[in-house]
Amino acid sequence: MHGFHVYDTTLRDGAQQEGINVSVADKLAISRLLDELGVTHIEGGWPGANPNDTEFFARAFGELELHTATLAAFGATRRAGIDAARDPQVQALLDSGAEVITLVAKSHPAHVERALRTTREENLAMISDTVAHLHAQGRTVMIDAEHFFDGYLLDREYALACVRAAHEAGAEVIALCDTNGGMLPGQVRDAVADVRAATGARLGIHCHNDTGCAVANSMAAVEAGADHVQGTINAYGERTGNADLITLVANLQLKLGMDLVEPHRLQDATRIAHAVSEVTNFPPFSRQPYVGSGAFAHKAGLHASAIKVDPDLYQHIDPKSVGNDMRMLVSDMAGRATVELKSREFGIDLAGNDEALSRVLAKVKQLEQQGYTFDAADASFELLLRRELEEEAPQYAQVESWRVMIDARGGENALSEATVKAVAGGHRLVATGEGNGPVNALDHGLRQTLTVVYPEIEALDLIDYKVRIFDAAHGTDATTRVLIETSDAHTSWTTVGVADNIVEASWEALLDGITYGLMRAGVPVR
Amino acid sequence: MHGFHVYDTTLRDGAQQEGINVSVADKLAISRLLDELGVTHIEGGWPGANPNDTEFFARAFGELELHTATLAAFGATRRAGIDAARDPQVQALLDSGAEVITLVAKSHPAHVERALRTTREENLAMISDTVAHLHAQGRTVMIDAEHFFDGYLLDREYALACVRAAHEAGAEVIALCDTNGGMLPGQVRDAVADVRAATGARLGIHCHNDTGCAVANSMAAVEAGADHVQGTINAYGERTGNADLITLVANLQLKLGMDLVEPHRLQDATRIAHAVSEVTNFPPFSRQPYVGSGAFAHKAGLHASAIKVDPDLYQHIDPKSVGNDMRMLVSDMAGRATVELKSREFGIDLAGNDEALSRVLAKVKQLEQQGYTFDAADASFELLLRRELEEEAPQYAQVESWRVMIDARGGENALSEATVKAVAGGHRLVATGEGNGPVNALDHGLRQTLTVVYPEIEALDLIDYKVRIFDAAHGTDATTRVLIETSDAHTSWTTVGVADNIVEASWEALLDGITYGLMRAGVPVR
Repeated sequence: MHGFHVYDTTLRDGAQQEGINVSVADKLAISRLLDELGVTHIEGGWPGANPNDTEFFARAFGELELHTATLAAFGATRRAGIDAARDPQVQALLDSGAEVITLVAKSHPAHVERALRTTREENLAMISDTVAHLHAQGRTVMIDAEHFFDGYLLDREYALACVRAAHEAGAEVIALCDTNGGMLPGQVRDAVADVRAATGARLGIHCHNDTGCAVANSMAAVEAGADHVQGTINAYGERTGNADLITLVANLQLKLGMDLVEPHRLQDATRIAHAVSEVTNFPPFSRQPYVGSGAFAHKAGLHASAIKVDPDLYQHIDPKSVGNDMRMLVSDMAGRATVELKSREFGIDLAGNDEALSRVLAKVKQLEQQGYTFDAADASFELLLRRELEEEAPQYAQVESWRVMIDARGGENALSEATVKAVAGGHRLVATGEGNGPVNALDHGLRQTLTVVYPEIEALDLIDYKVRIFDAAHGTDATTRVLIETSDAHTSWTTVGVADNIVEASWEALLDGITYGLMRAGVPVR
Repeated sequence: MHGFHVYDTTLRDGAQQEGINVSVADKLAISRLLDELGVTHIEGGWPGANPNDTEFFARAFGELELHTATLAAFGATRRAGIDAARDPQVQALLDSGAEVITLVAKSHPAHVERALRTTREENLAMISDTVAHLHAQGRTVMIDAEHFFDGYLLDREYALACVRAAHEAGAEVIALCDTNGGMLPGQVRDAVADVRAATGARLGIHCHNDTGCAVANSMAAVEAGADHVQGTINAYGERTGNADLITLVANLQLKLGMDLVEPHRLQDATRIAHAVSEVTNFPPFSRQPYVGSGAFAHKAGLHASAIKVDPDLYQHIDPKSVGNDMRMLVSDMAGRATVELKSREFGIDLAGNDEALSRVLAKVKQLEQQGYTFDAADASFELLLRRELEEEAPQYAQVESWRVMIDARGGENALSEATVKAVAGGHRLVATGEGNGPVNALDHGLRQTLTVVYPEIEALDLIDYKVRIFDAAHGTDATTRVLIETSDAHTSWTTVGVADNIVEASWEALLDGITYGLMRAGVPVR
């Protein structure tokens, strides 16, 4: 294999992140997504050592149809004092059937002596033997030189000896690992250049983000001649995470002009990153480079007026090249340009309509003074817009009253109940909902009430709920802002509510969230 | 000022992040934390342009006692075609009273021509005039050269001309800004070195994280001679965020041996980063370098004995140098030591009492699993400790039940009422409190009930109330954690409550807050 390697270790190193637990089915699903992205290698796990991983490899060869990626099995060099051929851990790697086997090897003398408790010489033999053995069995062998840079700084000769041992025994790539994540780009660049010149081996790079430089360190290694980069989707990994593979690929491809994955695959990056976070159920990070929901979200009003003129004035790339979108955030920093651009997002053209723009902007600023925030609540903003313009937002019901009761007896859990009374579709409806808290009860009560006239409400789900108290120095007399995220089968939207009373604030966000959902679905007022 | 500048723009650029809205009170609180960290400058906002910021500067000079930091006002060069002395925007910067004024200036010809719609020459005059004017008024002037690197790559001569104009007019520092965030470290390094050599100006750096290289780019600039770095706490900022100031300072100080802040201040970094996120109510990122809760969390499977041998084998720095802790998934050694140290803070000596330490630790871990956090709730921890040990925490009343009702009719504001029934001092007490929200009502109800037997309760004030929802992906079924800060005439303390029901969680924190206050005052159980 002579091409540049984009080596993904989401399923192995990434899966070791606190809070991430992926089943075999999850791993298969993620593998398909990685293949769509166009990575060259998918490190599937440690067969033999982890039963789940043994199963993954067993099923993968039958169930996965990979087009660009090759599966790699991860494992370790043989145990000290035993033949590679007799080590069951090594045998399990062969048994997995993986064409590519990546072995973690010690390359730092302190780790050899104190963690493995063996000699430097034996460690070199462990490397050569295992590599040679697997190579003789027809597998492509890669080495992950663990703690490489720390070891290199301590004892350069020994570090080079480890690389040579692997290289001479037939390893295709020796990936130098900054296992503790403490390196800086200059150190990595110099080390990689030196190792390359001194050994002639094909080098790779594997970084962690403990100094906030995982991506920069990886790029420095590439600059110095490495042509195999390891990373994970969404930067999952130990402690501060691994290098974000999509950021790395986008940088190398879009900034340095390297051909790593086909452009149409990179254009799928945002979708893929989000799909992976759906599988892991680990919340996506909005500020993630390239693919984050906020990566191209513009807030300052000054930026908005410039973007109207030319998006390139405020964006370093065209978001579409990674499948992302430009978003305007409406906030107290907004100006008329922001309102105009945002309205366009909703299909409302206010170009040149200064009177309407000024009126909407004034309304926004007034509400923001009271504590509303629209930069994270697009649906509320759209409803506000429609209510301010000729085009009104539908009012599905006239709410007469609502009442919430929370009752705690002795040591039992509190019970919550909400009664809602409203007129809809010509009927006066009274219903009571129960829940594990006041807002949950209110949500159920509201639905119970409306569902008779609007059964379409069943398709809407409340999926996220955030509370912010401000002027908290006034204690519980403070103003409360609630953000609620509602979804249907296709997408989700966020609405905001503000009041002194947290339940009242929640009510406002709830009602708007449902109104917006029904409006989106084209449900008429009955 | 000749020392290295650690210039914080959390309150200005950081506030441009989606989902962050900080009040004046919040800004004052954050300023105190920034000062504790030891930053040299706090960019407080744009007085004149943002009414909140005008108020911030007005109050800051009276209310803030800064020991290391100087406040800076942010603004822009004068408008085209008008004298600096006649520009109200510029005047507002002077009126703020800030000793340091930082002006954003265009340095990219396309922005000058298309965003500002003026000529290159006029832009240079705008820079010189405004800098000279403010300098003549005795202020220290800094320049933020906006879109500098993009401009420099397009038209090096013009970019240099802008720097010279500022420098010759008396600007102390010209901070080169990668406004769109698209630069890579090598480009930044080369540009900064060139600009420094060509102009002799004192240079700063301001980066965004759009290529995942904000920290690396900033360090590359320092490597090339910049001695003023800008960033934000927790990397808040537009789109993908600004350079994480703590990561930057930790790298420069702990890795490159620079003296930026006193070591004891850096040891407070973790506490400060978390405290800032409490104020902004923006959830902290566990994988954040240095200060993230997971930054030094080590995977399961590692032998505790190996790490006991030498934590340096697995950590790039001693976590304590940034105030963080190593967290082990195996081994309770670190845990028991923490409990022992904390108990000592409360005057309880558990040295050698392994049985008690283990019991308390187990209880803490069990509660933390459920969502409790004791980092920010010392009073709750002390109550837990006393309840677990022989020495019990006083129980001032037996609460029989409580009930909260929230009622909203038509368009009126919701009314909230809470009835509490308890036995105290041999009496059965029933009282009802009203409030502007369920928790406020409950607080009043609880006080109404207890005040007959414990009039000392009048001296206690609820001064802060924070809510955090987690597992928010489950919507309103999520777990809620409430932190309540209570004060008496002398000091204040924080208690925590956790439940699915926000009111129930608040009740727990309320009751413990009052219990702790009465206990502190030496009030006997009646």
